[in-house]
Amino acid sequence: MAHINVPEGVPGIRSLVLFRPETGKPLYDLAQVLLRGESPLSPAERELIAAYVSSRNHCGFCMNSHAAAARCLYEDEKGVVDAILTSVDTAPVSEKLKALLAIAGKVQVSGKSVTPADVAAAREQGADDREIHDTVLIAAAFSMFNRYVDGLASWTPEDPAVYEEMGRRMAKGYVLPQTNQ
Amino acid sequence: MAHINVPEGVPGIRSLVLFRPETGKPLYDLAQVLLRGESPLSPAERELIAAYVSSRNHCGFCMNSHAAAARCLYEDEKGVVDAILTSVDTAPVSEKLKALLAIAGKVQVSGKSVTPADVAAAREQGADDREIHDTVLIAAAFSMFNRYVDGLASWTPEDPAVYEEMGRRMAKGYVLPQTNQ
Repeated sequence: MAHINVPEGVPGIRSLVLFRPETGKPLYDLAQVLLRGESPLSPAERELIAAYVSSRNHCGFCMNSHAAAARCLYEDEKGVVDAILTSVDTAPVSEKLKALLAIAGKVQVSGKSVTPADVAAAREQGADDREIHDTVLIAAAFSMFNRYVDGLASWTPEDPAVYEEMGRRMAKGYVLPQTNQ
Repeated sequence: MAHINVPEGVPGIRSLVLFRPETGKPLYDLAQVLLRGESPLSPAERELIAAYVSSRNHCGFCMNSHAAAARCLYEDEKGVVDAILTSVDTAPVSEKLKALLAIAGKVQVSGKSVTPADVAAAREQGADDREIHDTVLIAAAFSMFNRYVDGLASWTPEDPAVYEEMGRRMAKGYVLPQTNQ
């Protein structure tokens, strides 16, 4: 049961933004521009970073939903998403994305743990300022979303089919749920 | 020097949102509604929670600027802000605010570390759902802002006078800086 009186049967952050739509709006706006807006990183790559950080924070709701969105966007025949969640080193993604995921992993621990060497390693693989910026902000934002969802003990469904449907919806974009939904 | 090419001489998050105003807008909107919008917690109390979480994350820019904003809003004759940053237990604030700061401290570590007992302790001191919600979201949001500011190694001024002036401006509200500023 959630720590506060949120709508029953509504999972994760959706229940929290129905409780407090005023803060929900900038949170959904941030997700939309950061994960779907213009960026040198594809929406699939950005969802993968979100799922990876959420996995490291053991946030089941965010990890499963953003992994589902990433699978949907990757048309994930190669199992990229599960490979990343198992081991970045051996996953079938570019060296550039691996270097960016290493930065995201540092940010998940602490902003200060990102070193000039981490950034140089990403640049050597071709990452530019915008890719580094967006990676750091996605990792920072999911350090927030994960804490919001779990800090209020919002409902985490266990049925994988729920996340598949959620991922298909999220792949289309982030729209603030309405109170009457 | 920052990890990416942001405007020189502009401190902290301001340099980052000038680099990327599209994501800056929802970030500033979130700060405005969460720290200045309608809430049972006063703007001073909310800035105090922000400074406290930033202190625990060793984010000098966010700690000093939000502590300055809190001092400004508290008209801090009693030294509440510095007392909280030294020791919550002995600080001259209500038991309710101490219980909420304990929750914020848990969120800073991990969302999952907030227990029903932490929430019950805050309720015993009179905290309601909205106060608990806003405390958790402020702590979660600063887990993001701190990582964003430090993860990109944005400039942290050292002169206390810079933060005093920043605190006076922030006390009036959060407005996205413009590129030509």
